[in-house]
Parts: sequence; structure tokens; C-alpha cells
Amino acid sequence: MDTDPPLQLRVFNLNCWAIRYLSKLRQERIGLIGDTLSQEGFDLALLQEVWSERDYCELKQKLTACYPYSHYFKSGVIGSGLCVFSRYPILDTFLYQYSLNGYPYMLQHGDWFCGKAVGLLVIKICGIIFHVYVTHLHAEYCRDKDAYLPHRVVQAWELAQFIQHTSKGADVVLLGGDLNMHPGDVGIRLLRGWTGLRDSFADTERFEGCEDGCTLVPANCFTNKEEMQPFTLGIRIDYVLYKGLSRFVVKCDSLMTTTGTAPGKNIPYSDHEAVIATLCVKPREEAKASSGSAVEPELVDVVNEARTEVRVGLHAAERQRYSNGRMAILALLLLLLQAAMGLSSLAGWDSPQPFPKFSFSLLSLLATVVLLLSMVLYVFHTIEVKMLQGTEEQMRLALQALQDKLSSM
Amino acid sequence: MDTDPPLQLRVFNLNCWAIRYLSKLRQERIGLIGDTLSQEGFDLALLQEVWSERDYCELKQKLTACYPYSHYFKSGVIGSGLCVFSRYPILDTFLYQYSLNGYPYMLQHGDWFCGKAVGLLVIKICGIIFHVYVTHLHAEYCRDKDAYLPHRVVQAWELAQFIQHTSKGADVVLLGGDLNMHPGDVGIRLLRGWTGLRDSFADTERFEGCEDGCTLVPANCFTNKEEMQPFTLGIRIDYVLYKGLSRFVVKCDSLMTTTGTAPGKNIPYSDHEAVIATLCVKPREEAKASSGSAVEPELVDVVNEARTEVRVGLHAAERQRYSNGRMAILALLLLLLQAAMGLSSLAGWDSPQPFPKFSFSLLSLLATVVLLLSMVLYVFHTIEVKMLQGTEEQMRLALQALQDKLSSM
Repeated sequence: MDTDPPLQLRVFNLNCWAIRYLSKLRQERIGLIGDTLSQEGFDLALLQEVWSERDYCELKQKLTACYPYSHYFKSGVIGSGLCVFSRYPILDTFLYQYSLNGYPYMLQHGDWFCGKAVGLLVIKICGIIFHVYVTHLHAEYCRDKDAYLPHRVVQAWELAQFIQHTSKGADVVLLGGDLNMHPGDVGIRLLRGWTGLRDSFADTERFEGCEDGCTLVPANCFTNKEEMQPFTLGIRIDYVLYKGLSRFVVKCDSLMTTTGTAPGKNIPYSDHEAVIATLCVKPREEAKASSGSAVEPELVDVVNEARTEVRVGLHAAERQRYSNGRMAILALLLLLLQAAMGLSSLAGWDSPQPFPKFSFSLLSLLATVVLLLSMVLYVFHTIEVKMLQGTEEQMRLALQALQDKLSSM
Repeated sequence: MDTDPPLQLRVFNLNCWAIRYLSKLRQERIGLIGDTLSQEGFDLALLQEVWSERDYCELKQKLTACYPYSHYFKSGVIGSGLCVFSRYPILDTFLYQYSLNGYPYMLQHGDWFCGKAVGLLVIKICGIIFHVYVTHLHAEYCRDKDAYLPHRVVQAWELAQFIQHTSKGADVVLLGGDLNMHPGDVGIRLLRGWTGLRDSFADTERFEGCEDGCTLVPANCFTNKEEMQPFTLGIRIDYVLYKGLSRFVVKCDSLMTTTGTAPGKNIPYSDHEAVIATLCVKPREEAKASSGSAVEPELVDVVNEARTEVRVGLHAAERQRYSNGRMAILALLLLLLQAAMGLSSLAGWDSPQPFPKFSFSLLSLLATVVLLLSMVLYVFHTIEVKMLQGTEEQMRLALQALQDKLSSM
């Protein structure tokens, strides 16, 4: 192996923004993405937000010659939106759905319906086992008052744990996706600190594209200019992260992003910019083989920070559960009162001024709907509370283990 | 390592049947379980159906001296019911919730509310890394017409995949739990075939306990005698499975089950019998190190059989989704009709024989409730369809990979 030339791998990552009936110029853009993937002949294309399986099938049909292997991960009501096209055989796949992913009643955001998840693909390239992860975390709709931050932190934690637990048999770990987190956000620091994944933008030798590696830029005609106002250059939320395990070292030779439009075209591929990384994989020199296992003391602070966010989410979820429970009890009391009134009127004990039948029925309709909805929401928020409690407990355990390791160093 | 004496490990596994307000003699039995665990000093105790965290805390308090390490896995509305007590430090934990787990409207069964899952614990014993899995699959309520079989098969498949993907860094894999499958059922054959896990009952050198290793026996005063009628000896659905990886061999020196009552007492620990395995872990002889990677040709048939079950489930889920969608549309049409009638009456276009207001309101109440419920169920069954399709596709891929491997052998 040591005499082999280094392996070069070209990886394409894009959030395709392909929502049927809602995304602008969807079909043209899917066609364009297919053409580019076909012409450029990357080794791997990691796509997110391909919500419609028909779009996936269209891409698959177009790309069969160039990328004979592909996989679409199904989950949620709509589908995970995650798919991968590969020049090399996919040996195995596995899907992990995040335990928290927004709220079903936030229809205008819709993340809950997507069943956000991380997909794992095991791919063997020139004898090297790649564990390729593709994911898409919960969107951030309002940075100043981000109600979904605890859920996104839980997702980042589950992603980090999933990668750590499933990558023991890998030579190289590769993660591509729309993480919906800025590079300095607690979730991304947690993910990188816990897994030891390296950021292709921070590590690349050559970079070409949007300033600061941004992937959501004002120059893109599909981005919401108002939301982007505080960020004049744009924001970086799409990543290609990697690490070499045991016998291999990975580095990023070059990184590119598109810059508002697809190269040579007048429309972009998506509202996000594509990230194209050229990675170089070579055998590790034996002397440095053990350097990866050190624990960074800063990780303790990061886990603590993440744990605080989870606690904030836990308090909010407990409040929501409480208010739904109270609402259900009130609606039930109203229904019982109405039943008693109805029964008394049937028994002939009419009150001198009877309640109008129509309003009476409307009120019971309202009470029944409120009772049903608040019961369902009570159950939903109870699950949320349990998952946040479980994550908080896991983080406590992790902190303990980290501190033990640090004190024994 | 080769000169070290073999490691002996005593593992206790029990479905505790500890449902607050419902399970008989719950507190006495939890006390009894605590006393026995404390006296016997097992190395590991894997418990299921400890639904109340208060019961877990009671056990934890009692067992701190003998089992300083423990973990409770939180999930679902009630909690996963899974917990582990260990004499050795728990280095890490991870939870995987099964993507399908019954139906929320089957309140009398209640499995959906438990968030059935598999918990992984990483435990280091005498320098050997154990990956300990504890799980509880969906119950079987009617063997002849088992509506939950596809869900249980999906769970067995996800369990097998989870174990395969997360055990690469382990020396020994250990799985304990109530799998709710008889030894010959397709799910258990899939799980064992896919993971290579060995059954302690089939492999043990010495066995003591219920005939055929049964763990649900008529002699137990809490079992439902009517359901057990076709099985005179009882059934075996609780397992301790294991395998040694790379450098280690595991065998089962002895296996025991309780026999209807706790030893020396007149009541049982639970409606299930406890399984107590004494495992022996020793370094593998180098010559035999590669024997574990062969693919059994029978596995193709097992995966095919499982895939058929998943397809049956898929058709049922599609039918359910369709009928819920149809119901929602009918309810919506009725509501629209009523709205039109209401509007026309407001506009003064009264029909010669007006519809009685009370019945009118009652009907709209009913239509609204039906619309809401059938919409929620439509979404639920759509998720079910997606997950079954995803599993079926994964099994197809797995079959292809298996056949490739077999043809290259």
C-alpha cells in the first residue's frame, strides 16, 4: 500500500432545494444538476433536499453511465431528501433518524414532515473503506430567537455519536451536508470536537468561490435577501468534513463553491451554493499513527455549552407540555359540564332559560377539537421532554468520561 | 493476553413487567429483583419493562454498592423500559429507536407509546471491550393473525444492522432482551444470520431451568394461560446472544432460567422467566481467526423470507393510508356541504324544510373529529409506508451483496 500513489477523490455536495410545486425552476435546475454531474464525473455526489423520488429517478436515469451506484434514503412523510450518486459500488447503507426534528404543527416550516436523518453508505474505493455520511439538519428560521436551537444541538450530538459508533471499521470518514449551522455555532464545534472531523474549507490548500466559503450568498437570486441582511458576505452552512482513521491520512487539495450561478449559466443550481472538494487520501506514516486519540480540553466547554442549550430546550418543552395538559383538562371539564347539562335537559330538568342548542353544539365541537389536539400535543411534548432529558443525561456521562480522560493524561 | 486465564462473566436478563398501576405485585417484585441482584452479584444485569423511572431509581439506590454503574434509556412517551446495571464502568451509551413500532391508536396494546429501541453500552472488562446491547421488540398479541409481524421483522432487521454497524470496535458483542420471537421465527433467524450472534441456549454446556429454555411458561402465575394453550411447555422469547470478534472467543459455560417462581420464594420475579448465562471469554487461537467471515447460503432465503413479510406489511400500510385518505376527503366534503348550507341559510335562502340545527351541529362535530383523526392517521401511515419501502429496498440491496459474495466464493 505504501508505494501506491495517493488516491484523489472529487466530492460534490449540494442542497438542491427541490420541493415540488414550491421551489422555483425546479425541473430546469434538476436537469442542470444532472448535466453538470454527468459532465464533471465526480467520484461522489451528496445531495440534500431532493424531496421528490421522481426527481431522484430522473437524476438516476441520466447518471447511470457515469455513476452506476446510487441510493435514496426514505424517511418521514415526504422522504429524507437525501441521496447519493457514486462511481464506486455501495456495499451497505444505514439510516439514523434524529429523535427530535421540530414540531408537526409548524406547518409553515415543515421540517418535522421530512424525517431529518443521517444516511451512512459504506463504499470501497481502491481497497480503502469509506464511510460516507450525508445529512441535513433542522433549518434555522430566526437566528436571534431560534426556537429550534435545542433540537439542532440534539441532532448535532446524535450525528456525532452516530459517526463515532459506526465508523470503527472505516479507513476514511466523509460527511457532506447542509448542517444549518455557522462555522462557530455550538453544534458544529460539538460535532467536530467529538468526532475529530476536519473542515475542508479550513484545511484546503487552494480555495476558489464565495468569500469565506459561504454557501448561502446574496448574489444567488433565490436567497431571501431580507434574512441575509446581517450577513453581507453570506453564511456558510454546507460542509464537506472528513478524517482518516488508523492507516490513512486525508487532506483537502482544493475546494470550490459556486458563486450565485451555475458555472457558464445564468441560473443557480439551487438557493444554496454547491461545495466541491478534491480530497487526497494516502497511507499514514507509522510514526504519527497515534496522534489522533488526544482529548482537547476545550471539548469539555463545548459539551457544557451544548448541554446548557439542551436544558433551555427541556424547560421550553416542559412548559409546552404543561400548557397542553392544562388545555386538555379544561376542554374535558367543559365537555363534562355540557354532557351534564344535556342529560339534565333530557331528564326534563330544563333550566328556566335554556342554552341555545346551536351555540351549545358549536361549543362542544370546539371543546372536542381542543381536547383531541391538546392530547396529541401533550403526548408529542412528553416524547420531546424524554428525548431532551436523555440527551442531557448522555452529555453528563460524556463530560464525566472526558474529565476522567483529561485528569489521567 | 494469551497467558491470562479466561474471563468469566455472569449475565442476568429479565423482562421485569413493571407497569405502574397495571402489573400485579409490582413493588414486591421490584424489591425481590433488587434483593436477588444484590445477593447474587452478577457482572451485568440487563432489564426490560422497567417503565417507571422511580422503580429504576429504587433499584439503583439498592444496588449502588454491588453495581456502581447503571444506565436507563429514555425514549417514547413512557420511556424505553430498558436499563442496565453493571459492576464495570460504562464508557459510552447510544440509543437507536426503531422506525416502526405499532400504532398509537392501539391503546390496548400500548407498544407505540413505549418508543421501543435498542440501547448500546460500551463496557471495558479486564481490558476487553464489550458492546452490550439491550432491547425489547414489539409484542406478539395473536400468533395466528399477527398484524405486527412486519413491524417486528423491520425491528429485527434494524437491530441486526445497528449491531453490525456499531460493533466494529468491540472485542465481544452481547445482546440481551425480550425479542418477542420464538427461536425459529424469521426475525430471529435474520438477526442471528446477519450478525453471526450465537444463542446461549443452543450453545451452552450445562442447562438448568424450564424445558426447552422457555421464558414464558404456564407454571408462572402471571402468564395468560389461554394465550399459552397451544404451547404446553411454554415459549422462549427472552435471549442472551453473543459473539467474539477478532481476538476473542466466547462460549456459554452454563445457562439457567427461573422456573415459574423466584428461587426460594413463592412469587415469580415477573411474568417472564429470568435468563442467567455464565459466559467464558478467552483469546482466540490465531489459526481460527478468519473463520467468522463466511456467508451462509441459507441467509439468502432468510432475507428473502423477511422481505416478503415486509412487503405484506407494505400492502397493509398502503391500504390503511388509502382508507384514511378517503375518509378525510369524505369528512371534508361533508363539512364543505354543511358550510354551503349554513351560508345559504345566513343569506336568507332557507329551504322549505330546514335541517334541524342541533343535528346539523352534531354532524359537523362528527365530521370535524373524523377529518382531524383521519388526517393524522394518513400522515402516520404515510411514514409507515415510507419506512417499509426503505427497508424493502435495503433488503434488496443486501440480497444483491450476499449473492455477489456467494458467487465469488
